[in-house]
Order: sequence, then C-alpha cells, then structure tokens
Amino acid sequence: MWPDRRLLDLFDIELPIVQAPMAGAVGLELIIAAADAGGLGSMPCAMLTPDKAREQIAIFKQRTSKPLNVNFFCHAPVAADAQAEARWRTRLATYYKEYGVDPNVPVPSANRSPFDEAMCGVIEEAKPKIVSFHFGLPEERLLKRVKTAGCIVLSSATTAKEARWLEAHGADVIIAQGNEAGGHRGMFLTDKVDQQPGTFALVPQVVDAVRVPVIAAGGISDGRGIAAAFALGASAAQVGSAYLKCPESLIGKPYRDGLANSDSDSTTVTNVLTGKPARGIVNRVMAEVGPLSSDAPAFPHAATALAPLRAAAEKKGSAEFTPMWSGQAAALAPELPAAELTKKLAADALKRLKQMTA
Amino acid sequence: MWPDRRLLDLFDIELPIVQAPMAGAVGLELIIAAADAGGLGSMPCAMLTPDKAREQIAIFKQRTSKPLNVNFFCHAPVAADAQAEARWRTRLATYYKEYGVDPNVPVPSANRSPFDEAMCGVIEEAKPKIVSFHFGLPEERLLKRVKTAGCIVLSSATTAKEARWLEAHGADVIIAQGNEAGGHRGMFLTDKVDQQPGTFALVPQVVDAVRVPVIAAGGISDGRGIAAAFALGASAAQVGSAYLKCPESLIGKPYRDGLANSDSDSTTVTNVLTGKPARGIVNRVMAEVGPLSSDAPAFPHAATALAPLRAAAEKKGSAEFTPMWSGQAAALAPELPAAELTKKLAADALKRLKQMTA
Repeated sequence: MWPDRRLLDLFDIELPIVQAPMAGAVGLELIIAAADAGGLGSMPCAMLTPDKAREQIAIFKQRTSKPLNVNFFCHAPVAADAQAEARWRTRLATYYKEYGVDPNVPVPSANRSPFDEAMCGVIEEAKPKIVSFHFGLPEERLLKRVKTAGCIVLSSATTAKEARWLEAHGADVIIAQGNEAGGHRGMFLTDKVDQQPGTFALVPQVVDAVRVPVIAAGGISDGRGIAAAFALGASAAQVGSAYLKCPESLIGKPYRDGLANSDSDSTTVTNVLTGKPARGIVNRVMAEVGPLSSDAPAFPHAATALAPLRAAAEKKGSAEFTPMWSGQAAALAPELPAAELTKKLAADALKRLKQMTA
Repeated sequence: MWPDRRLLDLFDIELPIVQAPMAGAVGLELIIAAADAGGLGSMPCAMLTPDKAREQIAIFKQRTSKPLNVNFFCHAPVAADAQAEARWRTRLATYYKEYGVDPNVPVPSANRSPFDEAMCGVIEEAKPKIVSFHFGLPEERLLKRVKTAGCIVLSSATTAKEARWLEAHGADVIIAQGNEAGGHRGMFLTDKVDQQPGTFALVPQVVDAVRVPVIAAGGISDGRGIAAAFALGASAAQVGSAYLKCPESLIGKPYRDGLANSDSDSTTVTNVLTGKPARGIVNRVMAEVGPLSSDAPAFPHAATALAPLRAAAEKKGSAEFTPMWSGQAAALAPELPAAELTKKLAADALKRLKQMTA
C-alpha cells in the first residue's frame, strides 16, 4: 500500500502521518484521537511542568495502547535581560496605552522550558516509544539517558547541514522542516531565517544527506502533500495546521477564524511574538512591530510583555497580539475531528499515489 | 506513462519538463537541446532587442521543428531616478574605491525591457506556439494580439490570488512559482516577498484556484521533484537551476562554481542586484548591502551602478557583484548536457512515479 514502510515499522503505526506537537494548541483528546486513528500522536511538553507531563503521558497510556511521541524544546535558555525588557516595553508602550493596560502590571515570565533533568526523569519512568526534540538535541548526558530508556529519538533539521549534525549526534529519525512550516523553525546551527529552504527543496537534500528515515514537514495539509512527500523521499509526513482546525484543538475563536480565512500568502516568519522566528498568520503586532525586529527580547522573553496585551485583545475577540502559528497550506485542510482527519489524509494520499501510475 | 497529459497534449511535447527561460544564462544551443530531447525549450527575450529576438527565433525554427516558448518580462517600466541613483552610488562608494573604479565612469543603463509594440510585432510574425510572461501580463491590447496570433499564453503566479487573476485575464496555463525558485519572483499583485509561499504549499492551492493546467516551478532539480509536482496536482514541472549547470549554459566560471558548491541554504532573495526581488546564491554585495535594501533603485536600475564593479570583480574571477540566480535545490542537479539532463530528469521521474505504488 505505502511506498515506504520504514517509519510505519519503526514506530509501529498504521498510517505514515505524524500529528505535529504544537505546544498550547493540542491536548490529550486530539493526540489520542490521532493515535487511535493510526497516526503518530505527539504530545508537546514545552509548556508543561514535569508533573503535568507525567500525568498526561499516564492518561494517554490508560486510554490507548498506541505508541506516543513526547516532544520537548531543547534551546539553550537565556535569562531575562532587564534592559532588553525595558526597550521592548517602550516599543509596545502605545499598545499598552491604547488598551488601557498598566505598564507596571506584574506579568509571569513566559514559560517555554527546555528539556532538563526533571523531564528526563519523567521520560525514563514513562518510557514513551518516541521522544522528539526541537532546536537540536539536549546535552549528551541527557540524550544518552533517553536512548538508554529505549526511546526512538527524533529532531528537526531546517538545512541539510543540520540533518547531518543530528544524525551524527544520535537522532534516529530526521524531521525535514521546510520553510512552509508553521510555528518555530527548529533551526539550531544557523539563524539565517531568510535562507531556510522550502519543503520541496529541503526534503530530498536531507534524504540524500543522511541514512536514517526522514519525515517531511511544512505545508502538508492534504493527501496530495503526503503523496508528494513520499515522491521526494520521505518515509512519513508531519501535519500541523490541519490538526489545528480540528474541533479538539485548544485554540481560541479568533485564531480558528484566522485559519479558516487564510490564503496561500497569509503567513510570515516573525520573532516578535516569542523572540525566536516562527511562522504565523500576520496579525497587527507582526505587521507593525515586525515581522522581524531587533527590539524583541530573546526567546521566550518577547512573549512576557505581550501577555497582558494579548489577554486584553482576546477579551475583545481580537488576535492582534495572539500567535496564530500556521503553515502556508492551512487553507487546504478540511475542518474535521482529528480521527476523521487522520483517516481522510491517509485515504486521500493512497488514492493520489495510485493515480501517479495511471 | 505520465499521470497527467494536459500539457503534453496542449504543447505537443513528449516530456512534461519546461526548461526555464533565464535571461542572459541560456542561449540557443541549450534551448534547442532541451526541445529536441522532448521538453519545452524556452527562449528568454528580456535582454534582447526585437531584431535579436527575431533572429534567434528564426534560427531555432531552422534547426528544429519542436514547439518553442518565447518569454518576456512585462513589468511597468520605471524611469531612472537621478536621486535614487546618487544615493545608490554613495552606498556603493567603498566598493568603487576598493576596486579602483572611477565613480564617474559612464555606464550604459541596465537593459531589461518589458514586452512592447515592437516585440509584439516579432511574435505576430514568428507565431511561436507558446509565449510566456513574467510579472503579470502585458496590456490587454498587446495580449489580444498575441492570442490572435494563435500563441498559448503562460504567466507566473506566486500566490493563489495571482493565479486567479491571471486566469481571469487570459492566461491559458499558470506557472505556480514557489519561493524556492531562483531568479526574479513573478509577483505582480503583491510585493510581500516574506509571505511568498513555497512550492509545496503553493502548487495545490493554485491547482484548486484555477481550471487551467498548472506548471510547478521552484526547487525542482531531479526526478523526485517532478514526481512530487504531479502528486501536488501540476501537469508539468519547470526546471531552472539544473539547466544552468549544463555545459551549454552561458554563465561564467565563478557562477558555475557557486552552483557546484551550493548547499540547501546557500541562497536568499535579494533586491540589491536589479531592484526587484530575486533568489540567488549569497555573495558579498547581497550579504553586506542587502539582502533587501531600501537603497536599491527600482528595477532594473540597481544593476546599472553595479555593472562596473561586477566587471572588475569578474576580471579577478570573483562573483562578489555578479547575480548568481539559483533556486534552493541546485545541489540536487547533475552536471549534464541539456539533452541528457532533460532525458534523465524524465526517466528518473517515471521511475519514481512507478515506485509510488509499490
């Protein structure tokens, strides 16, 4: 049926579809539905405490026997810088004024934690079949423990060079993340956002660069895209934006409306929302302050001063300051429950693959 | 054999491969070889006089009975602006000094002419099977004459919206030009370079937006890419960078070396070389002055003041100021004569398509 079974066999899944781990946007209901439908369910832990991650993995295991991918960020954490923070608040002052938000309101700092000792303990205890990392790989000592626990290790490459690095440092599978992808670019050996190759160019160059299997990511929202990913040499496709449109996703109405109304050129890569470049639907703060601004504090601290503005705008039904992470092909995705979506993507891909040898 | 025959039948060609028209880089030998091998040969006329275009079309017709695609730019011409020119020369002054070039040396103005009355006369006389345009379509009066001459009209879309516009205004075929593509983006309804979708996301959205057949362009340099283009819904693939690597291409040694050594992230989109955004291998002037600079005069005038620097650098074997237009997948292309390349791309694509239903 499928032209390449490497990842189906390695992950022990039925359908070559990885539901992308999208922190804050996908929860247990969606992950379990994607997994039960035969895809690879992926649990984002970048915004969870170790206790919460432990609890969620336990619930997943209670409710399904399918394999699970547990996902972590592994950026080098940077402490908040008071000067950068002050400059950022000055840059945002007119918005604070417009929304009547007190600029001195205390704001909890943005919570994107990298994989650490405590999380590693959770993994050793829960032993999920798969652990994926974003922004490279964790320090060798921790990675070794993850591998000793028997987990298959995935990480994202945005260039052929990053793919080679990841393979050499122990990744068992590479996610080739093209420029079309929504959310944070996984880039870790480069910060040249403008030079990131698109999925079409990246996937075959990564396939040629490494021996491990490759997952294509970025701009894949329908069966045609999955078929094309196989044609380019990938062994599976990672799908993000399409799952955001599921009723089970945790996104709010303005974000959902943004996805429903998006077109081929509705997104861009911005650093103003978190401090690291990520693709999302263009909103007011991206258009007026960014999309790329040297005023934005380092990841994840840019989000801190935006939080009260975001809350105030969302109260009025506006996504002016809300990250609406999205890839470039969200418009192609149907709005379906996660199980149905997963099955439809696979059925459409198989149909498309059959048409390829008419 | 091929999953979609719409363009093979419309163009009366054997292989669904369009050799991209690359002004200044491909000449008759390459075009005839690509056409004779079964692809669609494309003759770039943006840098030719009407007499030269007439002569080249005549030679093509003498040497082969294959169909020909004659390509034109159709940008709205902007007169050179003395103030902008002076600002640009100031920006480049250190380079003039470094290379010992007299800043007052008279330089012929850059020669990218849009399709006009005279060129339209050439087309009416020569009646090539296909005429393609870049940057939209020419004015209605001229377009009507091209269509009355019996020519099939192609143009490039960089968004779904541009594709709909082109179909509504008379294009018979749409080239979906993804962000991966080398050279000038065909964008004409937008100038938001950062929002241009990649090939993987763009092609299916264009296919869904129009009824006419679609050619995929951008990042396609091998058989896998052609197979993937069909999977995404295209009826043919346009290939650029791979043809630049042919011995028949007209590019100089530094440019050829740049392509041979390129990696997945060697290119970016710049406006400093001509005034309009175009993708090329990063060189010194792109890195130091751009890649995008508001100092660059309007297209094509940015090229004027660079011309003497380019000549001086090339004399020393350097491409510091030379446009090295390239897509993001040049590294995938073999170095073969144009006929062999065309046949290999097709054979590899067919092989890949067969593997898709293993």
